[in-house]
Amino acid sequence: MNLLQQKIITEGQVLSDSILKVDSFLNHQIDPQLMKYIGEEFAGLFAEAGITKILTIESSGIAPSVMAGLSLGVPVVFARKRKSLTLVDQLYSSKVYSFTKNETNEISIANSYITSDDVVLVIDDFLANGQAALGLIDIVEQAGATAAGVGIVIEKGFQNGGNLIRERGIRVESLAIIDSLSDGIVTFKGENSR
Amino acid sequence: MNLLQQKIITEGQVLSDSILKVDSFLNHQIDPQLMKYIGEEFAGLFAEAGITKILTIESSGIAPSVMAGLSLGVPVVFARKRKSLTLVDQLYSSKVYSFTKNETNEISIANSYITSDDVVLVIDDFLANGQAALGLIDIVEQAGATAAGVGIVIEKGFQNGGNLIRERGIRVESLAIIDSLSDGIVTFKGENSR
Repeated sequence: MNLLQQKIITEGQVLSDSILKVDSFLNHQIDPQLMKYIGEEFAGLFAEAGITKILTIESSGIAPSVMAGLSLGVPVVFARKRKSLTLVDQLYSSKVYSFTKNETNEISIANSYITSDDVVLVIDDFLANGQAALGLIDIVEQAGATAAGVGIVIEKGFQNGGNLIRERGIRVESLAIIDSLSDGIVTFKGENSR
Repeated sequence: MNLLQQKIITEGQVLSDSILKVDSFLNHQIDPQLMKYIGEEFAGLFAEAGITKILTIESSGIAPSVMAGLSLGVPVVFARKRKSLTLVDQLYSSKVYSFTKNETNEISIANSYITSDDVVLVIDDFLANGQAALGLIDIVEQAGATAAGVGIVIEKGFQNGGNLIRERGIRVESLAIIDSLSDGIVTFKGENSR
């Protein structure tokens, strides 16, 4: 069990069979030392991939991405969920449906920050239905850049997002894959039970 | 001139007498190495302040805060601009008026993440009219915690926010203070011109 999985076991709260709350170290309060570990793990996994840029989405994707960018020596771009006043540039946009919130957000980046020369690592905090990651991949493809892979902090292995992305031939590396949250117990992929 | 000020000169875009766009390294694309430098600067400035927690606001405050948290060895909490599904806790909330967007946002944190024992460093990317920083200080005070100070990446010295906070006896440390953006030229406090 890695450091992240240990943290999930000790601090994660299972709110239902599908909802794991990790607000104490990832989604609301952030553990910077754990983020550094996560960033270094992503950097190691994609060390040979020729990454030139990391693409993530506000807000919870930013901390692990910045640490991965520090380790890989590349900039991070975060997609915004709504347009801000000084984003006057031409945009790449994609629609992302959230099953959790039952709403569609348009995510955008200024098109100057990803070019066709870029080899992009997409990073996000959670992978469940895959809609956010697929939206980010869509933006990479609009830019004519290469999607080298997707780095996920916590994948809900019992939901379909991981399959949707892997079926497209895109490499997905998740630092913790959760098989089940049944009965309030977190079971990781590869474990029988705990 | 420090590293941040150099970056502002080389990459910042002056859009008007009051708007400086730093989307290439802080607000949209993020330079992780610069964030590490910024985090270490904040950590040095507040090294003797007994900081136990950093409080910031999504999204652009997160990267510098996480780096400062790494250097200081303390957790970061980011206030959310709207409630999310898994934020089921009791909240501390404050209303923040944005002059730029002409709208009021309610910012919130779960009350479990700041307690009366905490000595809090508030960090944000920009300080202009001071409304966001004052909202964060309001949350610190609601929690009965101590506001040890405010760390700002870029302060617009020609707007009133810095004065509003300093007049309350709260220490403000800004890594770059801009005196003027007139005629498309960035002038920092303490410079005659450039």
